[in-house]
Formats: sequence, C-alpha cells, structure tokens
Amino acid sequence: MSVTAPQGFRAAAVACGIKASGALDLALVASTRPCTAAAVFTTNQVKAAPVRYDQAMLAHRRAGFRAVVINSGNANACTGPQGLSDVYRVTELAGFLLGFPADTILMMSTGVIGVPLPVDKIRAGLMRAVPALSEAGGEAAARAIMTTDTRPKMAVRRLTLNGIPVTIGGMAKGAGMIHPHMATMLALITTDAEIDADRLQALLRSAVDVSFHRITVDGDQSTNDTVMILANGAAGAAVDEGSMPLFQEALTDLCMELAKAIVQDGEGATKFVEIRVRGARTPEEARRIARHIARSPLVKTAFYGEDPNWGRILAAAGAAGVPFDPDAISLWIQRENETPLLLFDRGAPAFYFEEEARRIFQASAFRVILDLDMGEGEDWVWTCDLSHEYVTINGKYRT
Amino acid sequence: MSVTAPQGFRAAAVACGIKASGALDLALVASTRPCTAAAVFTTNQVKAAPVRYDQAMLAHRRAGFRAVVINSGNANACTGPQGLSDVYRVTELAGFLLGFPADTILMMSTGVIGVPLPVDKIRAGLMRAVPALSEAGGEAAARAIMTTDTRPKMAVRRLTLNGIPVTIGGMAKGAGMIHPHMATMLALITTDAEIDADRLQALLRSAVDVSFHRITVDGDQSTNDTVMILANGAAGAAVDEGSMPLFQEALTDLCMELAKAIVQDGEGATKFVEIRVRGARTPEEARRIARHIARSPLVKTAFYGEDPNWGRILAAAGAAGVPFDPDAISLWIQRENETPLLLFDRGAPAFYFEEEARRIFQASAFRVILDLDMGEGEDWVWTCDLSHEYVTINGKYRT
Repeated sequence: MSVTAPQGFRAAAVACGIKASGALDLALVASTRPCTAAAVFTTNQVKAAPVRYDQAMLAHRRAGFRAVVINSGNANACTGPQGLSDVYRVTELAGFLLGFPADTILMMSTGVIGVPLPVDKIRAGLMRAVPALSEAGGEAAARAIMTTDTRPKMAVRRLTLNGIPVTIGGMAKGAGMIHPHMATMLALITTDAEIDADRLQALLRSAVDVSFHRITVDGDQSTNDTVMILANGAAGAAVDEGSMPLFQEALTDLCMELAKAIVQDGEGATKFVEIRVRGARTPEEARRIARHIARSPLVKTAFYGEDPNWGRILAAAGAAGVPFDPDAISLWIQRENETPLLLFDRGAPAFYFEEEARRIFQASAFRVILDLDMGEGEDWVWTCDLSHEYVTINGKYRT
Repeated sequence: MSVTAPQGFRAAAVACGIKASGALDLALVASTRPCTAAAVFTTNQVKAAPVRYDQAMLAHRRAGFRAVVINSGNANACTGPQGLSDVYRVTELAGFLLGFPADTILMMSTGVIGVPLPVDKIRAGLMRAVPALSEAGGEAAARAIMTTDTRPKMAVRRLTLNGIPVTIGGMAKGAGMIHPHMATMLALITTDAEIDADRLQALLRSAVDVSFHRITVDGDQSTNDTVMILANGAAGAAVDEGSMPLFQEALTDLCMELAKAIVQDGEGATKFVEIRVRGARTPEEARRIARHIARSPLVKTAFYGEDPNWGRILAAAGAAGVPFDPDAISLWIQRENETPLLLFDRGAPAFYFEEEARRIFQASAFRVILDLDMGEGEDWVWTCDLSHEYVTINGKYRT
C-alpha cells in the first residue's frame, strides 16, 4: 500500500535500466488532485540537482503539485549544470505524459554520485510507467527506490478527522547506516487529508525531528536526503487547528516506523541499538553525546562483536565536546522489557556478571543508557552496528 | 634505539602477565639525570588515572623527573578512585626500586578500559625491569607498549647545538586508526639536550600540532592519549633562543615520522592517504573539512575497495559544516611523484579515464586534493582505509 493507501494517489514502478541488475529503478507517484507539498532537505553544502530543483519549486509555491518522479541507481549529484538541466527534461516529460504542467512535478534521485543522469532510459521508463499507474502500485514504488536496502519500507496510519476517515501512507529508503545521512535517505509521504502548506511544513518538520533526524549521526547528510509529504484533500476532511495534534501524532508515528525500518535495514546491520543519554544540562547536549557514541566505529564494532566493552562507550561520550564530571556518570544496558543492567556506577565499575552483560549484547535490539547526573536534559538516537558486511558492501559499491 | 638513543637514558621491557598472550607488556624508561618534562594529553572528559596523575604532577613542577612506567593491556581508565590509587602504588614502587622519590616517576597506560590495573603483576614486573635497564633497551620498550600495533614505532634525530651533538629519540604506539585518538595514542620522546620546561612545552606543542594532531579525526581522543618528552641535558648542550628553531625542526620531523608510522600501522589499514584541502577561507576551515572526509566510513571503505568513488569525498566535504560554493570546487587524486589527476573541475565532472583513477587508488599511498577556490587556507590530515580486518580486530578486541 504505502503511498497509495490514501485516496487519490496512484503509483507505478518500472525497471528502466539504470541499475545494471535489471531491478526496479524508477518510481512514479501521482495524485488525481492537486496537492499541497512540504519537504525537509539535506543541509549538505553539496546538493544534488533534484534537491536544488525541488527547493526552488517549493520556494516559489507550495500547492498545485501532481506527481513525484523518483529514480534509484543514480544520485544526479556533482553533475554540474547538466544535472539540473536533466531534472528539467525529466519533469517536463513526466508532466507532458501525465497531462500536467511541468512545474507541478517534483523529483528525487538516489544512487551513485558524479555520473550523468541517463535521461533516455528514464524517458523510456516514464512512457511505460504513466499508463501503469494504479492504486496497487505503492509497494512496487517502494521497491523501486531501494539501493542497497534489502527490503522495501512502507507504513500506513489511519485516523478520523471530524468523523471522516483519512489516511497517511509513506515509503522510505536508506541503506548505508553508519553515517545514515551520508547514504541517501529518501521518504515520500502522502495523505488524503486537506492541509494548508504552512501547517503541512510545520507538521512534517516536527515529525522528522523525532524520527529521521534521530537516525542522523553527527549532522552528516548526503547530497540527496529528502523527506517530502503531499496532501491532496481527497478524503474530504481538513486538518484544522483543533485536529492538528491528532494528525501530528499519526504522522510522527508513521515517520518513526519508517526511520526505525531504515536503521534495522542498515548496510550489514545485525543490531538495532538505542543510545539514550539523560541527566544532561540540556536535551541538545544529551543528543550531541548520544550521536557521538552512535557514530564511533569502536563502539559499533563492539556491538557487532557482541562484546560488552563499555569503556569504549564512555570514551566516545567523553570525546563529544560536552563537559561533564566523569566521576558522576553511570551506564546501563537494557534488553527490551527487562530491568537495565548497571555497568558503571558514578565513576566506578559496578558489580555485575559478565555473562549477563554479554547476553544483553547478544540481543538483536538493546538500549544503552548513560546518565550524566547534571540536569534534566534527555535525548536518544537509533543506530546499528558496523559489520564485515558493511565493509564489503561499501568497498565494492559501484562494481 | 628509540628512547635510549640520547645519552643517559636506559630502558627495559618485561612480560608481566597483563597480556594473556605472554607478550611484553611493561616498559620502564629511566634517566641517569633529572629531566625537565613536557606533555600533551587527551582532551577527553573521561581521563584515565595515569593521565590525571601525570597532569597533576606536571602542574605541580616540571623538572626533576627520573622515569616513566608504561604498561599495555590495561588502560586504567574508568576504574574509579581505585585507579588513581593504583598509579600511586606503581610509581611509589618504581621510585623505591630505582632509588628516587615516588614523585619523580610518571606513568602511562594503554589497553582495555574499565578493568582494575593488576598492580601485583606490575610489581613483579618492575622488580625484573629495574635490574634489566640498559642503553640497549629502547627497542624492547617500544615493543612493550604495543596493543594491536603490528610493529614497534621508533625514530631518532641527531643535530648539533653550538658544536655539540645532541640526540632526540622517540617511540609511539597507536592502533585503532579509524578514529585514531579513540584508540590510545602514546608517545614518549627523550633528548639529551638541556631545555627549560617552558621552552620544552612550547616545542612539544608545536611539534604535536603538525604531527600527532593531524592524524586525529574529528577531535576525538581516547581516555589515555599522551605525548611526553623528557630532557636530561646529558649531552652538555642547551637549547637556547637561537637554537630553538633547529631543535624544533628536528623534534617536529621526529614526531611526523612517528605519527605517519601510526597511521601506516592502523588496525587493518591497507592504504595511507593524505587528505589535503586548499583554497579555504582559513587553515582551520580547511582542516575541519579534511578531518570530516578522513573520518567518513563511506570514503574509507571506498579507499579499501580501491574504488575511485569520488562523489563520496565531495559529499563528506559538504557535510563538514563549513560553507562553500559547490560549483567552484575541484578535486584531484595523486600518486606520489606523479601529476595529480583532475576528477572534478569547478562544480562538474572532469574528463579522465576511469582506469587511471583506479590505478591511483590501487597505490598503497596516495593523496586527495580538494580546492574550494575561496581563499588561501590550506591544511591536511593523514588517514587510512576501513577494512574487514578493522572490523575483525575491534569486534573481538577483548576476547
């Protein structure tokens, strides 16, 4: 279902030959009605052509959009002036085939950087995709945006606004999860609720802040990262001041499901780990430390090796650039639905059984809790381990 | 030779049983004359007990030191009050055995975090090490401080001060080189020149800034990082205002040799790569970008895979938090003593042969040059690749 779960959205996916494997590599999502749109983009200084294009379009106006073209296998980044020109050619063609103006079409790309977009292949693909658009096309679209993802990521939420059922649907792709935003993270969300553009942007930003942004490590972002939402109003219900919290909750929940799925399907990932820091002076400081721990290769390889070498966690915390008193800190690890195990107690090793710590690290998902004992600031990030498979995938990505 | 190359320094190394393998794990370096001392320590919030101890000693006075005890296999970090007490016990004993006051002995440790220091083993080791002290003990000492290092790192420089020959000797250990300072980096340097403590500290800081600090990525530092120098004046020549530049040059050169050796022997490293950024507004901004590139797992795995996937380098540069114009930047790769190969030319892919780029990436050492075309700021870092072997080493470090 994914993006075609809400009324009035159709999708199609084709293999147009960008991926040498012959796998699906072109997705088209279109709405029967004009949509308001909102998006959060990468903050990387080097932005891919489709990001530059979408940003320019949304700066101009944020309503009247009809479709999004997404290709995988080629990021159309670092492609110079040709790259932007290629986005115009693709959106122009998609608009022509769909019967809409070119400036109602948005575009996302993911894949290799620095290689010109194969526009001829995409052209041929679009000619097959447009007639194939259907309400059943959501799952195929979610597959077509994958790169090294091993499975499609989809989520749906249903809620009632003033007695009228509305739906939110979404799909996402991630992959290289050590520095999640260094690999492209794309998400497209659709809804048949009616929402004005300002409200839609605010709702999306709040949802992204506690979902996709929590799988960010160190602020790194790829050249292509994009989370976009389209609202077409087909359900006949509007999100107003009163129903905003309800819609926000459903949207945030959907984004968290997709974000979690991205981490769980990280390249070579065998573990899903929540790093939670509490007792910081501010949530920002807690988050900074959590991110620093989450991106430490020494911590991540210890997760992979199922080695409760917690000294590495404290060392990573101490290098985050946030002052704290090492004699006041405590550290726990926790398996879901179990009591946390205290490893380090206010500056000194705690008494615990090594086999118990190892049992927790052997779980496919666990939590690390660091308490700084300085204040009320708390935050978390989701991350995964660093495995041999990660190195294999990224050592030979292009070949 | 290493630390015993200068006159008046003796060293010994023994296997005292901290390392389960039975390898050398305790080094003792002593001077026949009192030494002035200077050091640069980790900035990690979580500092190991020997770091806290040495910092306190050097804050108190910076002359009169006679020996340094260094153990590998145990970092004595995150060991609570007991950790500091253990350093006192070890230095007390070493002083007693050497016939010097306890407060003339310094200590360094490297190894696993969070495990109490096995003082009994070290005591037994010191009783064998003290009588074994000799001018031939430098190499064994360099071996005894290794953890996952595959070879000892030593360097010697000789120069003439006012007609009198003086010598600088040094040894270092590194290992986990993805985030170099996350693994412990220890270096002990000795010289038979006479230098007052303020001058010695200034000389060391300048030398470290363009050597050990350039193999840092992201400012991360371990709980134990220490670079220390002892000057005993045995050669009968003093470093004065006039001869400072000469001594600085030799000391810096020695530190660069040791730092380079650390990167080349990085855990699982197969490539030595210099990341050079020029055309930045300031050297600091150039360094920040160079470090960001140097610590990107996607860039490092591409180095390992010998895949000239330069888009990842640009993506990492753009995520460093330094503003620049992506349409103005250029990128080259260069094999030593060859003309650089232009890959990206002012915002667009350059014309080059893929096989030529691959040939450069296949070298065991090469350089990446990024030009931002904004100003005169230039800087560099040395790094290595991220291999399967790195994951193997760090997934099972303690077992």
